[in-house]
Amino acid sequence: MAASAPSAGGAGTMSRDAFRAAVTNTLERRLFFVPSFKIYGGVAGLYDYGPPGCAVKANVLAFWRQHFVLEEGMLEVDCPCVTPEVVLKASGHVDKFTDLMVKDEKTGNCYRADHLLKDFCKDKLEKDHTLSPEMVKEYNRVLAILDDLSAEQLGAKIKEYGIVAPDTKNPLSDPYPFNLMFQTSIGPSGLSPGYMRPETAQGIFVNFKDLYYYNGNKLPFAAAQIGQAFRNEISPRQGLLRVREFTLAEIEHFVDPEDKSHPKFGDVSDLEFLMFPREDQMAGRSATRLKLGNAVSEGTVNNETLGYFIGRVYLFLTQLGIDKDRLRFRQHLPNEMAHYAADCWDAEIECSYGWIECVGIADRSAYDLRAHSDKSGEKLEAHEKFAEPREVEKLVITPSKKELGLAFKGNQKMVLESLEAMTETEALDMKAVLESKGEVEFKVCTLGKDVTIKKNMVSINIEKKKEHQRKFTPSVIEPSFGIGRIIYCLFEHCFYQRPGKTEDEQLNVFCFPPLVAPIKCTVFPLVKLEKFEVVAKKISKALTAAGISHIIDMTGNTIGKRYARTDEIGVPLAITVDNTTSVTVRDRDSKDQIRVEVDEVASVVKEVTDGQSTWADIMWRYPAHSSSAADEEEAEP
Amino acid sequence: MAASAPSAGGAGTMSRDAFRAAVTNTLERRLFFVPSFKIYGGVAGLYDYGPPGCAVKANVLAFWRQHFVLEEGMLEVDCPCVTPEVVLKASGHVDKFTDLMVKDEKTGNCYRADHLLKDFCKDKLEKDHTLSPEMVKEYNRVLAILDDLSAEQLGAKIKEYGIVAPDTKNPLSDPYPFNLMFQTSIGPSGLSPGYMRPETAQGIFVNFKDLYYYNGNKLPFAAAQIGQAFRNEISPRQGLLRVREFTLAEIEHFVDPEDKSHPKFGDVSDLEFLMFPREDQMAGRSATRLKLGNAVSEGTVNNETLGYFIGRVYLFLTQLGIDKDRLRFRQHLPNEMAHYAADCWDAEIECSYGWIECVGIADRSAYDLRAHSDKSGEKLEAHEKFAEPREVEKLVITPSKKELGLAFKGNQKMVLESLEAMTETEALDMKAVLESKGEVEFKVCTLGKDVTIKKNMVSINIEKKKEHQRKFTPSVIEPSFGIGRIIYCLFEHCFYQRPGKTEDEQLNVFCFPPLVAPIKCTVFPLVKLEKFEVVAKKISKALTAAGISHIIDMTGNTIGKRYARTDEIGVPLAITVDNTTSVTVRDRDSKDQIRVEVDEVASVVKEVTDGQSTWADIMWRYPAHSSSAADEEEAEP
Repeated sequence: MAASAPSAGGAGTMSRDAFRAAVTNTLERRLFFVPSFKIYGGVAGLYDYGPPGCAVKANVLAFWRQHFVLEEGMLEVDCPCVTPEVVLKASGHVDKFTDLMVKDEKTGNCYRADHLLKDFCKDKLEKDHTLSPEMVKEYNRVLAILDDLSAEQLGAKIKEYGIVAPDTKNPLSDPYPFNLMFQTSIGPSGLSPGYMRPETAQGIFVNFKDLYYYNGNKLPFAAAQIGQAFRNEISPRQGLLRVREFTLAEIEHFVDPEDKSHPKFGDVSDLEFLMFPREDQMAGRSATRLKLGNAVSEGTVNNETLGYFIGRVYLFLTQLGIDKDRLRFRQHLPNEMAHYAADCWDAEIECSYGWIECVGIADRSAYDLRAHSDKSGEKLEAHEKFAEPREVEKLVITPSKKELGLAFKGNQKMVLESLEAMTETEALDMKAVLESKGEVEFKVCTLGKDVTIKKNMVSINIEKKKEHQRKFTPSVIEPSFGIGRIIYCLFEHCFYQRPGKTEDEQLNVFCFPPLVAPIKCTVFPLVKLEKFEVVAKKISKALTAAGISHIIDMTGNTIGKRYARTDEIGVPLAITVDNTTSVTVRDRDSKDQIRVEVDEVASVVKEVTDGQSTWADIMWRYPAHSSSAADEEEAEP
Repeated sequence: MAASAPSAGGAGTMSRDAFRAAVTNTLERRLFFVPSFKIYGGVAGLYDYGPPGCAVKANVLAFWRQHFVLEEGMLEVDCPCVTPEVVLKASGHVDKFTDLMVKDEKTGNCYRADHLLKDFCKDKLEKDHTLSPEMVKEYNRVLAILDDLSAEQLGAKIKEYGIVAPDTKNPLSDPYPFNLMFQTSIGPSGLSPGYMRPETAQGIFVNFKDLYYYNGNKLPFAAAQIGQAFRNEISPRQGLLRVREFTLAEIEHFVDPEDKSHPKFGDVSDLEFLMFPREDQMAGRSATRLKLGNAVSEGTVNNETLGYFIGRVYLFLTQLGIDKDRLRFRQHLPNEMAHYAADCWDAEIECSYGWIECVGIADRSAYDLRAHSDKSGEKLEAHEKFAEPREVEKLVITPSKKELGLAFKGNQKMVLESLEAMTETEALDMKAVLESKGEVEFKVCTLGKDVTIKKNMVSINIEKKKEHQRKFTPSVIEPSFGIGRIIYCLFEHCFYQRPGKTEDEQLNVFCFPPLVAPIKCTVFPLVKLEKFEVVAKKISKALTAAGISHIIDMTGNTIGKRYARTDEIGVPLAITVDNTTSVTVRDRDSKDQIRVEVDEVASVVKEVTDGQSTWADIMWRYPAHSSSAADEEEAEP
């Protein structure tokens, strides 16, 4: 079908670079996005969305709200970007959110150390045909372990290979960590450091207690947030994919760690799509189509809730227009995952830059809530009330203050605290020895020495207790969406070219689904006649009242030119006013046309753009309109 | 009517403080908003929107997009918050976006100098009954001119009155300017200063050229942007009204300075509402109801386009639920307006803090585009093509390089440039003198001295030329909306209390219009019966499919308690499942109930919440349901 998107790989018969150039050229020329502050030379890693890009973004976010927040009854919050240091200290960002940087020793220019090493190895492998098999192996090994290298190891490799600054060939400094957060100062005193948040998640974690209460003190529940996040990248590249400011949409789903089942998992368990489990990656196999239900039941995916979100993310992305054959869910390798994470999968989308991580879906266990609990002193936990009190056995250690005081005087407190801090095993061992021998040697760390504990100094017992509830720190499952990356991949997946009137003329089309199309329809009078313009204005008014974004074009250009201009920004439907009672409606991709009454046309367009009907559905309800040669598209002169 | 909002003043019979406390208590308890980072003690001037607040905000912004962007075909853009220094240098923010600050000389605590002086004068006027008439006059005078005082004048008054630090009674430093922008550094070098934008407008101005092209090189057109803005306030107070990070929605309407008419002005010219022109303020009169059409035709409002936006802002705010009797449009006094502004009106909303500026509507003339043109060297101008070429007279100054070179040698270039830079008057004067005397003394600033210009060194002539177009810098009319302020005022205007079951029980209600209500409806089974729960779930599914946010409550609390809980977050409609074929639907404010078929109920709710019908409309179409005593609202125990 001429109208379909190009096949997997995105470029059809074009090279990747030529394809990317064609897409980017169209996107910038039609103002989907442009480098920010262009008249001042721009700033690397900052982009503006122009009118069509901004509309696509608003549509993607509105659908995200419908698909996740509304459908799952999530609690959406909206927290500031400016964040005080203590919060990001607790989360680990102040200490660990860094990339390793090297400086040109003469000019001071900065580079990411791993990028330089990566580029060097790739370049050697691609261009140096005299490499020995050993060196081929060595460079490939370095590329594989790149993310695991310490500053020292990276520095050693850079020295060993003689890598210099790419722009000047000057020598480079040793690698050192550069914190990627934009730093600022809150208030006028200069004494309260703050940062622009690197993610939206922390705003949710610090509100856990209120949100849990808002949810009637019940688990599971999910909170969500859409907002700006900031990363002061050392040297941004890859256009919209690595930027310094971007929109994140994040979900934190709080769940009982002992029960990660999901009541709606059945809704997605039959989905089948490309998955790339850890084992397959390590064995050098490629991604395969798996049934989500099997992936969970066989333990490939850690639990149902994680699996449920993987399925929902799949539906979200494919409904937006992402090609399902260029979308895979890749499990993190052990070395990629934080020590506390139970499991983690990335939704990766293939575009001309390769496979790009666009959504991360991680089971982060109780890490974040515990970190903020510890730092703030506020208990961030949930409780499960038992239907009936449960009898539990509990170890009770009761030191005798009097005897300890007599024996240890000033050291009493430290001995007492050490006794109380014993683990269950230690305490039971001590109990056994005290019962058999009457005394025991006991190491008190805070004193740095052993003391002798006698039987009368402490009683250790297993007691039966009735408990009415269980307290625990919830686990959190976090789907985190890089909205800009998804949108860029969507641009590539929706872009195709088709021949124009002449052989060598290629016309650009974005085949956006109506859901995300920036403009839903156009209204053109066929020729410049007042009676047609009146009808066009009437239709425009009805479309506005129905909340449908549209363009009304009275310029009098040829219809072909007008079609070409609007196909290029992905407008799905075009209304041509060629009559005062009925008009033609044209589908962008098939170029099919139907005739619809003037009074009906706004509601027909609404049906298609709201997703209640497809073009195929409505095609059968209305008479076809056969197009004339004049309707063929024309490129701009 | 018991169900109506309280009368103007917001508090009914309550004091302003008690009213504000009741609203704020409800808002914080129900998580409309909470102080950010509360578990760490919070940060002054930063607030989180919790689930209902976040939903209200999303609804307000969606309506803003519909009412302005879609209705007017505006070009929406989305630019980063991180902004390089050069942009904000050009706009004047780096040099002038300051407040005057004083420091406690011992503790270093910071205060806004004008706030201290204002508080002192107000306090004296309110509490000191021994004041002489002269001092009463003096304090009132100071309050009136507060905004005009220089740092020196403010400092002198603080000294004269003996004002000290409010917390410590320590002496204060002299006032000095503190820049209100959050500063940061872009990239790793530390050499590129940047700021978090204090407004979104600059992102539009720097894109003017591209947007003008996108609009087919035609004026007028408007660009719009919704986004975060940041102001590092010295000492934030007044809750949501003065914060350090907030959402702005801004429109920049570019227009030919010679034609500020608006084709749709007729749509709003009959509106009548409270206006407060400059003259009335200066004469000590109060705001009066004016017809917008008259205000423009009589010149009170500078031009039609400005007037059109004033009318559209009025419609926007009142449709949101702002009380029209507590909304006025106040014109800026001459001392409030920037020197370049042609006219400026603020939409002020009265709440318990007084009259609050929520929307500024300014005709900023060509100031911003010129500033960026000058700084960037990129021409930001529009052109008007003439239907037929026009003959114009033009002054042409042609220096003779040869003669100047012979006479001035190395200084030739500077003399030449000075000659070319002459104004029309200067050039014509020179021409006259040269013709009568043959030579003239001419001051060359760059040389710092006079030189003698002879007749053969320069020819100055008036020539007739044909011009095909006119080039000019467009004027910009800027409506700028403080979304958080509008939302806070909306909260106050929608809040009321009504008696519960018992005499002294007061129940809180937010009478949000369906358009902005955070949750559109609730679904309750009347009693805990499986057959009712099945129906409730079915209705919930239909509501989700229709995109209607709702709560399903199976807790089995009494209906009265459930109504009270949902009235408190402003849910307009409640569905009670008391039957398997039809259900009751209750209106929050009138408490009227109707019976609707199960299959129909989602579409009835959608009709009301989409604004196609009002409750009054649908009341007549369905049988009334008489409520029993059990339905009466109850407060929480």
